[in-house]
Amino acid sequence: MKRSDIDYLLDEASKLEDIAQSREISEELKGKLLGVMFFEPSTRTRMSFETAMKRLSGECIGFESSGSSSVSKGESIADTAKMFEGYCDALVIRHELEGVSKFISDVVDVPVINAGDGAGQHPTQTLLDLYTIKQEIGSIDNLKIALIGDLKFGRTVHSLANALCLYDNVELYFVSPPELKMPQEILHDLDKMNMSYTEVSNINEIIDKVNVLYVTRIQKERFGDIDDYLKIKGAYIINKKMLEGKDLIVMHPLPRIDEIDGDVDDTKYNKYFKQAANAVPVRMAILKTLIKNNPK
Amino acid sequence: MKRSDIDYLLDEASKLEDIAQSREISEELKGKLLGVMFFEPSTRTRMSFETAMKRLSGECIGFESSGSSSVSKGESIADTAKMFEGYCDALVIRHELEGVSKFISDVVDVPVINAGDGAGQHPTQTLLDLYTIKQEIGSIDNLKIALIGDLKFGRTVHSLANALCLYDNVELYFVSPPELKMPQEILHDLDKMNMSYTEVSNINEIIDKVNVLYVTRIQKERFGDIDDYLKIKGAYIINKKMLEGKDLIVMHPLPRIDEIDGDVDDTKYNKYFKQAANAVPVRMAILKTLIKNNPK
Amino acid sequence: MKRSDIDYLLDEASKLEDIAQSREISEELKGKLLGVMFFEPSTRTRMSFETAMKRLSGECIGFESSGSSSVSKGESIADTAKMFEGYCDALVIRHELEGVSKFISDVVDVPVINAGDGAGQHPTQTLLDLYTIKQEIGSIDNLKIALIGDLKFGRTVHSLANALCLYDNVELYFVSPPELKMPQEILHDLDKMNMSYTEVSNINEIIDKVNVLYVTRIQKERFGDIDDYLKIKGAYIINKKMLEGKDLIVMHPLPRIDEIDGDVDDTKYNKYFKQAANAVPVRMAILKTLIKNNPK
Repeated sequence: MKRSDIDYLLDEASKLEDIAQSREISEELKGKLLGVMFFEPSTRTRMSFETAMKRLSGECIGFESSGSSSVSKGESIADTAKMFEGYCDALVIRHELEGVSKFISDVVDVPVINAGDGAGQHPTQTLLDLYTIKQEIGSIDNLKIALIGDLKFGRTVHSLANALCLYDNVELYFVSPPELKMPQEILHDLDKMNMSYTEVSNINEIIDKVNVLYVTRIQKERFGDIDDYLKIKGAYIINKKMLEGKDLIVMHPLPRIDEIDGDVDDTKYNKYFKQAANAVPVRMAILKTLIKNNPK
Repeated sequence: MKRSDIDYLLDEASKLEDIAQSREISEELKGKLLGVMFFEPSTRTRMSFETAMKRLSGECIGFESSGSSSVSKGESIADTAKMFEGYCDALVIRHELEGVSKFISDVVDVPVINAGDGAGQHPTQTLLDLYTIKQEIGSIDNLKIALIGDLKFGRTVHSLANALCLYDNVELYFVSPPELKMPQEILHDLDKMNMSYTEVSNINEIIDKVNVLYVTRIQKERFGDIDDYLKIKGAYIINKKMLEGKDLIVMHPLPRIDEIDGDVDDTKYNKYFKQAANAVPVRMAILKTLIKNNPK
Repeated sequence: MKRSDIDYLLDEASKLEDIAQSREISEELKGKLLGVMFFEPSTRTRMSFETAMKRLSGECIGFESSGSSSVSKGESIADTAKMFEGYCDALVIRHELEGVSKFISDVVDVPVINAGDGAGQHPTQTLLDLYTIKQEIGSIDNLKIALIGDLKFGRTVHSLANALCLYDNVELYFVSPPELKMPQEILHDLDKMNMSYTEVSNINEIIDKVNVLYVTRIQKERFGDIDDYLKIKGAYIINKKMLEGKDLIVMHPLPRIDEIDGDVDDTKYNKYFKQAANAVPVRMAILKTLIKNNPK
């Protein structure tokens, strides 16, 4: 995606959010049907797509896990996708294997949206992250953004770091325990794009400089030794006291476990619930743009 | 709730039922979205809420059991509720623990409906029970009503007995085996409200006097000794022969197992299927009132 | 069903398909609700009914398996159906036992659609098969049609063979391994209707004569000895080479495993994906006709 494509979608999302807040009803996708093919469960992502579709007067059909798809009867993914193509105006795919969305988009003629495939991309999450930054701070250019927590396995932070390369004068700080540092191939991509980034192991080193703290969960399953986990865990928890007097926003892709203390919820720093709600206008913009522009 | 609130909702339900019967389409909640958060499965209650929402041209998203919610990933109920708040215009909650609906209503700004929480309340069931009595007999005041079966554990009969205190000159009869009598704390509440009630152990003692037989199921799991269960079971089964010549209606919150004989189904006494169908206009009235009156 | 009833539904389906292709929105069933009672899972059939209902601006409620119905709490199927009758304008039933749809239609006053019951009928599948033949070839009369694969247990081929008796001058060829021949009672029915049919064990015997190859899956579970299965399996697989130069169409009720080679997908012979998509206009025609004509 080019920056201009992203900017277009963020503008669309902003217009749709205004319509929603003024309590008008949008009928942009009246009579349209979204096929929800979630081979791997993801309640939150599925519900935000369904909400987006229904807020545009469209409708959804589909399945929530591979166990309730025809694939469990031995049907190929290609055949299942072709069946959905016969019923629907667009498809949204979630799968535990990287590349499945791309494969399906080669097989069918309707628009296909990737809602997360394994270690691969989760582009609509990145769009709603960008949207939240832009809505809350006014611009994405010229910002200092810290990505915190599990930077090794976190698909969200990989996508976001890559997308931020499209903006001007962004500086990134990667805050993680040594075991969970940003992978070399991501750093290599950032170098190629001339993105400025600094790796640090402590939030205190950067908390006075940044405009955005983007926090992710550290899963204890990632550590062979539970003691290693317990030792480092506390260093990556955000609380109200740390934030006092700072001029920044706190984001999180959710669900949160304990990496943001509950005492942040009622402060001005908390933008993670707003970020979650932004999934709706952003996915409305994506669905509207893809379905309305599809000649079929 | 005050009697005037209940009367308002019953009137609304009656108007909505008239609209439905004249085959008009109501668009009262067009563009609105109900979040269905059922941590505990309850197909019947869930479907009647979904039917009510869709009959008003609204829509639903949500989950049917805690296993398919984000709570199964370790997210707090408060965070899950805040996510739903970002997507929906109202929430309906079912949970096995008393007080969860109240807790969620403190956390979010959208209307929250309790669809049953543990040993606690199930207020929308009580409203549809009252609605059925009023529609079928014309008034709730001055009636003699027998509650039959499991009065110890039956949440429905507790709520109904309490609500009937708001009406004038109602007399209650509690018909149950000694093991399953109405709990002392409910009797205490009724005393405080000056409700007139009589405890009996045999249907024959009251069947000539009452206007309503409200039957509930006696679950054999409640008895330590299966012989105790088998001994008493037959005394609380309603059949056609018992009812002949009487001027009364038979109600039941359903599902029924065998406590009302199938030969009652085709008689004028049977109001339990009508009662089940009344869930729709009553829940339509509740949804319409809460969502239309919410400034958000 | 009489031929005139079928022809009426096929014409309706054709009109509704035209509307869909011209991107108009049909509001024929606006405000109507379909009760989906699937005691046995069938994602494909369920989704096509839901799609059909939503394409007509109607809505659906229901359950996908008996585990999530009230029947799992001990409620009778009749009581469950009566509850749905109180909520819905029509019911669609799937059950593993023959006759359940008929039983339910005797119990309720709303239209009931059989979406497959055990070894019994699956009439809406047959209608979409007939629709596909008529759309693709122009007429059903005077055709030579081969039914291939598991003719013993395949509910689809039994229904289709019976329905084709209503058309003029149709010749059937039954192509199956000896273990999976068309049952005697079906052959007896066809004899009574004076249907012309020939049993063969090899596709090559008939491939030059027929207009339609209707392929079904041979399940290895049907064979006591896996070697028997492996020995015959290859003889019932259709591939591109076999079809070259022939004037015929290939159909399949799907899901397919390997009985039609993937190299047929991109040929003009492939009508099985179109057939799957035809489930929507045909089921739209059925829903529209039943619900609009029901006086209730």
